[in-house]
Amino acid sequence: MSIETISSNHSFGGTQTVHKHASSATGTDMTFSVFVPEHAPGTKLPVVWYLSGLTCTHANVTEKGEYRRACAELGLIFVAPDTSPRGEGVPDDDAAAYDFGLGAGFYVDATEAPFNQHYKMRSYIENELPELIAANFPADMTRQGIMGHSMGGHGALTISLRNPGRFCSTSAFAPIVAPSQVPWGQKALGGYLGPDPSVWVDYDACALIERGARLPDLLVDQGAADNFLIEQLRTHLLAQTCEAAGQPATIRIQPGYDHSYYFIASFMEDHLRWHAERLAEPKG
Amino acid sequence: MSIETISSNHSFGGTQTVHKHASSATGTDMTFSVFVPEHAPGTKLPVVWYLSGLTCTHANVTEKGEYRRACAELGLIFVAPDTSPRGEGVPDDDAAAYDFGLGAGFYVDATEAPFNQHYKMRSYIENELPELIAANFPADMTRQGIMGHSMGGHGALTISLRNPGRFCSTSAFAPIVAPSQVPWGQKALGGYLGPDPSVWVDYDACALIERGARLPDLLVDQGAADNFLIEQLRTHLLAQTCEAAGQPATIRIQPGYDHSYYFIASFMEDHLRWHAERLAEPKG
Repeated sequence: MSIETISSNHSFGGTQTVHKHASSATGTDMTFSVFVPEHAPGTKLPVVWYLSGLTCTHANVTEKGEYRRACAELGLIFVAPDTSPRGEGVPDDDAAAYDFGLGAGFYVDATEAPFNQHYKMRSYIENELPELIAANFPADMTRQGIMGHSMGGHGALTISLRNPGRFCSTSAFAPIVAPSQVPWGQKALGGYLGPDPSVWVDYDACALIERGARLPDLLVDQGAADNFLIEQLRTHLLAQTCEAAGQPATIRIQPGYDHSYYFIASFMEDHLRWHAERLAEPKG
Repeated sequence: MSIETISSNHSFGGTQTVHKHASSATGTDMTFSVFVPEHAPGTKLPVVWYLSGLTCTHANVTEKGEYRRACAELGLIFVAPDTSPRGEGVPDDDAAAYDFGLGAGFYVDATEAPFNQHYKMRSYIENELPELIAANFPADMTRQGIMGHSMGGHGALTISLRNPGRFCSTSAFAPIVAPSQVPWGQKALGGYLGPDPSVWVDYDACALIERGARLPDLLVDQGAADNFLIEQLRTHLLAQTCEAAGQPATIRIQPGYDHSYYFIASFMEDHLRWHAERLAEPKG
């Protein structure tokens, strides 16, 4: 499992790198970025995963996420994977839609042809990439947090809910909270997993919580001026589900903010501090 | 002098906008971005100008500069202009070089044909855009600071040196300090102003200081791992010139940092605090 370093930049006293590797999960090359703060030799640092939204690669948050300053201060490694397999032979939606196919892997293991050959983002994010991070970076894998934006917020919530105990902290910016109930999710889950909604449950945060999955707590920020709030994100469904299930959750509606990185960057430090508090001590 | 708003995003409690207007200085449409922090109605805020480097538009620093958090805290308006005229009829270098023509206006008023028709970035930045900012934003024009990166660092230093008293604070990231003595500058000043170096003096920070121009002080950060340091930037020439001339200057060489926005963002807050200290009280 060798990784290639595409770029390396000194930033906020640490190192921002971008890497490429041949993924066995997706059968393609995959790209991801990692920020490692300055640290004493031999020490290991907690890891925060950031899963990106539709149309994004690792580059969007790496360039616009404004996380390095806080990660440097808090001593957090920040990992940003891509959002889908890419390259020759990777099928895309016929209509080249932004919400399915390339840039829209939805963090699922596809079962429907032709997507089931490469669209294995669940296995990639849950299994393969963590092994690479553990092997190649000064990462304390007993202290992991996960966060994401929009489709990546969906990814962060569902991956954490499906892997109890793995993540000390889980947060999201403007997540898709109930993909089974909204157009983006119905299209993606139907396309990757087939039309039977009963198999979508593993990839639906609200459905997972209703079925009994629990986290110690979770943090969500949602812009009130987000164009996708009413049709696609429907944050209130998560609030209602958590309330009904007794799942602790801090869900904040932020007046004036939209769906962009101008919103994400505004609350990135808040989220990272929230993660850092929960990642402060090794899990016993 | 009407301006069009292309985009507006709520961020860090303030408003990040991008605007377009028909420029009389350049005879083209020009684009710029402005961040206005949250502020009490009727109050006016100091303004920091940020001039960008080669190949950039307003968008680079707007997306990657990480200035909004500090500007919001410090109450600074941040203005980021484009680096050249653009559009049909604007001549570019025949070779489509990155260091001359589009994206490389060098903040001069060109006198050489065919560039003298549109390449009037000095007039645009010194005269036209400040009037637009004063007329359209809650800007206290008695409290202005100026900063820039690379070619824009050259712009910030020379514009401030040529306009004594206008700027309370002047700083630069990796500036071209002596364009008359380096390939980028010789090509640009020769192309825009003609081959006689005696007319380049107005656009050369070291030459201006040698001729007696002075600022209260100035701040420069330069990455030690910057690929352009030795051939194009030559920071030591500014240090020597300031030393010889008695021009107060804080010039810092930052180990490990390159020429990228990963470097700029790392020291942006430092610079903005430095500006804010000097912009705290209205100039009497």
